[in-house]
Amino acid sequence: VNETMVTIVGNAATDVRYSTTSAGVPLASFRLASTERRYDRQQGAWVDGETSFVTVWAWRWMAENVVSSVSKGDPLLVAGKLRVREREQDGKRTVTVDIDAWALGHDLSRGTSAFRRAVRARP
Amino acid sequence: VNETMVTIVGNAATDVRYSTTSAGVPLASFRLASTERRYDRQQGAWVDGETSFVTVWAWRWMAENVVSSVSKGDPLLVAGKLRVREREQDGKRTVTVDIDAWALGHDLSRGTSAFRRAVRARP
Amino acid sequence: VNETMVTIVGNAATDVRYSTTSAGVPLASFRLASTERRYDRQQGAWVDGETSFVTVWAWRWMAENVVSSVSKGDPLLVAGKLRVREREQDGKRTVTVDIDAWALGHDLSRGTSAFRRAVRARP
Amino acid sequence: VNETMVTIVGNAATDVRYSTTSAGVPLASFRLASTERRYDRQQGAWVDGETSFVTVWAWRWMAENVVSSVSKGDPLLVAGKLRVREREQDGKRTVTVDIDAWALGHDLSRGTSAFRRAVRARP
Repeated sequence: VNETMVTIVGNAATDVRYSTTSAGVPLASFRLASTERRYDRQQGAWVDGETSFVTVWAWRWMAENVVSSVSKGDPLLVAGKLRVREREQDGKRTVTVDIDAWALGHDLSRGTSAFRRAVRARP
Repeated sequence: VNETMVTIVGNAATDVRYSTTSAGVPLASFRLASTERRYDRQQGAWVDGETSFVTVWAWRWMAENVVSSVSKGDPLLVAGKLRVREREQDGKRTVTVDIDAWALGHDLSRGTSAFRRAVRARP
Repeated sequence: VNETMVTIVGNAATDVRYSTTSAGVPLASFRLASTERRYDRQQGAWVDGETSFVTVWAWRWMAENVVSSVSKGDPLLVAGKLRVREREQDGKRTVTVDIDAWALGHDLSRGTSAFRRAVRARP
Repeated sequence: VNETMVTIVGNAATDVRYSTTSAGVPLASFRLASTERRYDRQQGAWVDGETSFVTVWAWRWMAENVVSSVSKGDPLLVAGKLRVREREQDGKRTVTVDIDAWALGHDLSRGTSAFRRAVRARP
């Protein structure tokens, strides 16, 4: 039961940050910018709307593939679980918005990709 | 093209706030708390995870139906467009997380509902 | 990992069929008709598109709540897992399209609902 | 208002078929096989479940990028609109299940991809 599913199309707004947890699990993250496209009836054309920023997290083999495939600026499609966390720090409320990816890829509506299957894959 | 689709299950964490825009469009909003349920293999049981809070917005007829149907604490299912907005205010960065609902209802996995069709409905 | 997530808005096209499995698990199902709404630029108006039919399945407490809440014609919002099954029967290929609901409710964009929380709820 | 959103992870089960409509619009399609992965508590391991087959459709620039990027067997992530069509043909009922993709990419949980941005992109 995965209760907050989000599917988001956007661009990597940063390079990928790669690390491993203390238990040795690979972990990759980057910021994703998603700019809404909407049809403006008055202009009779598609126009840009607001931009949302989220942090995308990939784990295990996906982390390794993301760090070797994704660069800042790349157009991406991400499906995963949304997490919104609020914290009090030094009297200030901070909010972070994260997506734990369960699948992620370059968006073929905006370019081509040459895929190479990993020797090891998802469990 | 609706590029950031989210489907979220949770509970109304506030009562519904209802207003109309300056153009006379009905508008309803409330906070939604979504607590992750995950299977803990060690315990062999489902346990609560973290809670995410978002603000849900309903417009037009949906706003009118939401204000007359939803109370604080109600379990809900919401599908809509995710918006994450960052603003600088008085030198502080604030982040708001909103969902513009395109459909919304009481979650029948957690209770029963008696439905009454509106005289007027979605366009 | 729930790999084929679908969120669908439509109307119950049949009454709910309720049964229990041989293991005593409550099970409810009904047909859902979803008619696409799209903006026609030439007419400058929203028009009906094609209608898709799927079978929605609810289990356990949700099954009990669905059978006591949902009637033929009701507008609904369903989130769940899509299954497309192909079978050969007597030399004919048949295809069935099912959604195992993980949440389901009356769509408040098309009416009001009076909700009553169940004594027992989702695990 | 896009009322039947589906996000699906699977593998291309055929090569891509490419054509243009009578109006000259590029169009690409292929079959996608999605095999459910579920955690089996008795085995204490992830196992394969059933396989769903759908036909994926890409239009315009996405069609051109798909035909030059996707091969039979490739792991993919697709987000789009679900359509289930029933027809009577020669006294037989046939059902087709299609997804009109609004985004589509190689799944980086199962390999790496080298992306090249198209000169022309989505509207």
